[in-house]
Amino acid sequence: MTQLVIEGGKANAFRLAKGRAVKLVNTHGSQTVDAWALRAGDTSEYLSVEHTRRMLFKLFPAAGDLLYSNRRNPLLRLEEDTAPGRHDMLLACCDKWLYQHYGCEPGHANCRDNFIGALFDLGLDAHLVPNPVNLWMNVPVRENEKLSLEAPVSRPGDHVVLRAVEDCIIVFSACPMDVTPVNGDDRKPKAVCYEIQS
Amino acid sequence: MTQLVIEGGKANAFRLAKGRAVKLVNTHGSQTVDAWALRAGDTSEYLSVEHTRRMLFKLFPAAGDLLYSNRRNPLLRLEEDTAPGRHDMLLACCDKWLYQHYGCEPGHANCRDNFIGALFDLGLDAHLVPNPVNLWMNVPVRENEKLSLEAPVSRPGDHVVLRAVEDCIIVFSACPMDVTPVNGDDRKPKAVCYEIQS
Repeated sequence: MTQLVIEGGKANAFRLAKGRAVKLVNTHGSQTVDAWALRAGDTSEYLSVEHTRRMLFKLFPAAGDLLYSNRRNPLLRLEEDTAPGRHDMLLACCDKWLYQHYGCEPGHANCRDNFIGALFDLGLDAHLVPNPVNLWMNVPVRENEKLSLEAPVSRPGDHVVLRAVEDCIIVFSACPMDVTPVNGDDRKPKAVCYEIQS
Repeated sequence: MTQLVIEGGKANAFRLAKGRAVKLVNTHGSQTVDAWALRAGDTSEYLSVEHTRRMLFKLFPAAGDLLYSNRRNPLLRLEEDTAPGRHDMLLACCDKWLYQHYGCEPGHANCRDNFIGALFDLGLDAHLVPNPVNLWMNVPVRENEKLSLEAPVSRPGDHVVLRAVEDCIIVFSACPMDVTPVNGDDRKPKAVCYEIQS
């Protein structure tokens, strides 16, 4: 299988046919990857974390779990997950307003623009930006209500396998965040890689 | 002040000028009210729970908290909150797909259609349906990850006051759910009322 690289801070979008799977590898171990899925036949149906929480009755997905759409249909299955820790489904992707809030220079790369840009490269237009599944992003919940942003606990080579339950468009963004430690304590976005499996 | 009634299962949308507040009363104590806010000048900016969680570093809002938009601007302040318990910000509003999932007859009232219909009545078109703040909805988190749907712990006459930080459009839907106990163990949606304060 061809292994494709996503540079740190960049994004890719691709089609994943029903029944096929994508293996995404956290090459350096510390990279958060924002992940979206849209239904290929009608992109107004998309992976919705607020619907997935309701269908799973959980804040975080685990290996074996289905991930549901805004129409309560399963779109993906999280088939394999080698890392300790969780995958965040609570926080919006980073966006230009967040970097503005942090006082960064205008034009800072961000997952929201990455999502829109990666869909554009595939010939599609984003009509909204769903709350993604933030793979490996370490946002622990404490006292059943408090959140914090911490460095990932995943290790180099940890991977997830996501299998398409329907024909999907997948977007992965290797999060460009360099202010908070969500991409490691060195705050340096790094490359990840993926391959389509049969 | 004029007190307006929202029948159980129905919704109202109204404008709330910057600096003014709305007091919403849980008349019978057991009613979940899905609440949305859009910025009046540009409804593509809306109260976003996934951004609010990130700005508050909490799963649930409490009295005094600001509620943020998808552009990370405060839109509302939860100024008063007399009830014990929480207000859910984790679950999507009920929709026709949920009632279909439960095997209900087609045409069951639902908060998603209520949102779209209430905006229509105000001369506006919904281009997306954000994850609302579900006032008084009792979705406890346990073991820092598990969710359940329980009857509200609010009492007859409990109220919240929401103050507009910007000119807003507010939508309240007295949730029509009659399958799960989110509107009380009798599963009967009931009326609530609200008034605009200076």
